[in-house]
Amino acid sequence: MTAFGASPERTARDLFAQAAGEAFDDAALEPDAVEELFYGNFMGEFAEVQGHQGPLMAEAAGVSGPSTRIESACASSGVAVRHGVNQVRSGQADVVLVGGAERMKNISTAEGTKALSAAADALWEIKAGVTFPGAYSLMANSYFDEFGGTREDLAHIAVKNHSNAVENDLAQFQMAIDIDDVLEAPTVSSPFGLYDCSPMSDGASAAVLVSEEFAEANGLDTSVAITGVGQGSDSLALQDRVSIPETPAAVEAGETAYEDAGITPEDVDVAEVHDCFTIAEVLALESLGFYEPGEAITAAREGETTIDGELPVNLSGGLKAKGHPVGATGGAQISEMTKLLRGDHVNSDAVSDATVGLTHNAGGTVASCVVHVLEVVE
Amino acid sequence: MTAFGASPERTARDLFAQAAGEAFDDAALEPDAVEELFYGNFMGEFAEVQGHQGPLMAEAAGVSGPSTRIESACASSGVAVRHGVNQVRSGQADVVLVGGAERMKNISTAEGTKALSAAADALWEIKAGVTFPGAYSLMANSYFDEFGGTREDLAHIAVKNHSNAVENDLAQFQMAIDIDDVLEAPTVSSPFGLYDCSPMSDGASAAVLVSEEFAEANGLDTSVAITGVGQGSDSLALQDRVSIPETPAAVEAGETAYEDAGITPEDVDVAEVHDCFTIAEVLALESLGFYEPGEAITAAREGETTIDGELPVNLSGGLKAKGHPVGATGGAQISEMTKLLRGDHVNSDAVSDATVGLTHNAGGTVASCVVHVLEVVE
Repeated sequence: MTAFGASPERTARDLFAQAAGEAFDDAALEPDAVEELFYGNFMGEFAEVQGHQGPLMAEAAGVSGPSTRIESACASSGVAVRHGVNQVRSGQADVVLVGGAERMKNISTAEGTKALSAAADALWEIKAGVTFPGAYSLMANSYFDEFGGTREDLAHIAVKNHSNAVENDLAQFQMAIDIDDVLEAPTVSSPFGLYDCSPMSDGASAAVLVSEEFAEANGLDTSVAITGVGQGSDSLALQDRVSIPETPAAVEAGETAYEDAGITPEDVDVAEVHDCFTIAEVLALESLGFYEPGEAITAAREGETTIDGELPVNLSGGLKAKGHPVGATGGAQISEMTKLLRGDHVNSDAVSDATVGLTHNAGGTVASCVVHVLEVVE
Repeated sequence: MTAFGASPERTARDLFAQAAGEAFDDAALEPDAVEELFYGNFMGEFAEVQGHQGPLMAEAAGVSGPSTRIESACASSGVAVRHGVNQVRSGQADVVLVGGAERMKNISTAEGTKALSAAADALWEIKAGVTFPGAYSLMANSYFDEFGGTREDLAHIAVKNHSNAVENDLAQFQMAIDIDDVLEAPTVSSPFGLYDCSPMSDGASAAVLVSEEFAEANGLDTSVAITGVGQGSDSLALQDRVSIPETPAAVEAGETAYEDAGITPEDVDVAEVHDCFTIAEVLALESLGFYEPGEAITAAREGETTIDGELPVNLSGGLKAKGHPVGATGGAQISEMTKLLRGDHVNSDAVSDATVGLTHNAGGTVASCVVHVLEVVE
């Protein structure tokens, strides 16, 4: 992944070319080894009036063959990774490039907010005045009503994720915050203050996925493998859900990925989950089976998901502090988790015994979700 | 496919729900049999400020499981079909829903033209003032310069495709035109007049794809099968191409699909190709190996691709007369070709001996292309 942050002078193609180049270096492969590109982007139409980014990004990365742009809102590149994995598994390709990019800081926050709203239901949510901070605050308030919990519980999640990012050079906010910072920040949409919300970001991510056979035949690094994939969907509009503070698309994605990898939630040592808002991390941990519904709200506060906890969550800093260039986020989770498991992430020491990592990437109010299981291969 | 045309009061979700419902009826399956959705849409961000259409369309169609929106400009649903085929072939699903939708007539022609421009290079083509009629007219003039040919040659393509659509109730223009109509029409971008250009359209398409095993186990119609798929890419901007009047992405897609199906161009009995502009049909026929470069310009004029010719092309009416709701077009080609081969299309009688059909769906100025081979299964 590129460093996430504000680089309004750089185009999405420029960002993706950098990420792809670093992926090729890391994989010790040349671009011409790639047979197909799966690329995620969400809001290029709004930020650059640029669709049809599949062939554009193939050219930027120097690869040929089929190229497909996947758009699943903030899960765009996570879904691109899944389809890339499936293409390799099906035997139709040995080497694919996956990833995504997003440019968000070259337009105003108002324009960005409008663009992001395209991930919700234009007819039944956006026309009623809901923005994404608003939609997730409905989920948070509904959670509080149903299960209990407080703004301060959520604040611990923001503090934790900022803390994890302090030494991560790729993170947008390498800055510690405390509980008072969170609670005293300007309100965005009650119960959220500024620090409950992930930022607008520019950035790109990329990974080279290869078949086991190709890796062995070419003497490539096989220390970490994607062993499980899962994707799920839900009603786009919150109003059509059975329960507002639950995310069944994540349940479906998680269960599918666990079964695919032949593991259970208990086997997971470290996780990167989609904390676009603090409440989202809570919903993710419950949907993924790490906690019962209503139980994850205190996980950060109790230290269970902190860097020295039983299940460290978002050691990268998460979307909150690493940044959230939406179309790049799912691929960035794969990149950070690979480094964490391989031992070359700044926070790897905290999980030196970890062998199983999980990534959870969500679109909209989790109307779509994709989960990957990564494992250390001996 | 739904009837193509102007239905500005209907949302894309409404159109896709209709197409999916008709596909379920045709397949004799209930929506709950579907395991995954691959859905193509190009300009929903501009027409409806609606992205994230995967879960939206899954809900509209009444299906659950993973749902993915594919965006490859005007090849969006063709690419969605390919990924759906690959998912079934890989053994990861027995039943998938594929298709696409586009809403174009609820916005002005100027807004629609801006939206379509997102399929070209925003930095190097659109900012230089190129629109899609302009880009394809560059291709036509370059073709004339390199290989010869006249506006009147192109006019025969428009006349042929309109003629094919006269009895097709799903077509936008069920109206015959003659050569003078084409040559005397207002100029859009020289050498193109109005009748050289496909229209703005609303519409949707859908198909249920099933594995051979599932079809046999459930006694479903297996009279037509997709036996070959291929996809290719090229530089997004015309200026980066080696040759303006050639489309190597279509060559790559075609050769891959032929090899996949184990056939050659000579085996193809009937074709639906992406005639967004009259010249595009010429370039398609040459790239697909039916003609040498420079030779297809007179194919319609000589009657070789007419309804009673050796290789009938665009018996549906093509994009020109059937209409071109861009995200629905690739899926509509599959729908029309299936009917042609199965014997229940209004123009089936003209190809009653046909056993092999080909569909060619292009994005932008053929920066992306997908080809499918469909065969009658005895």
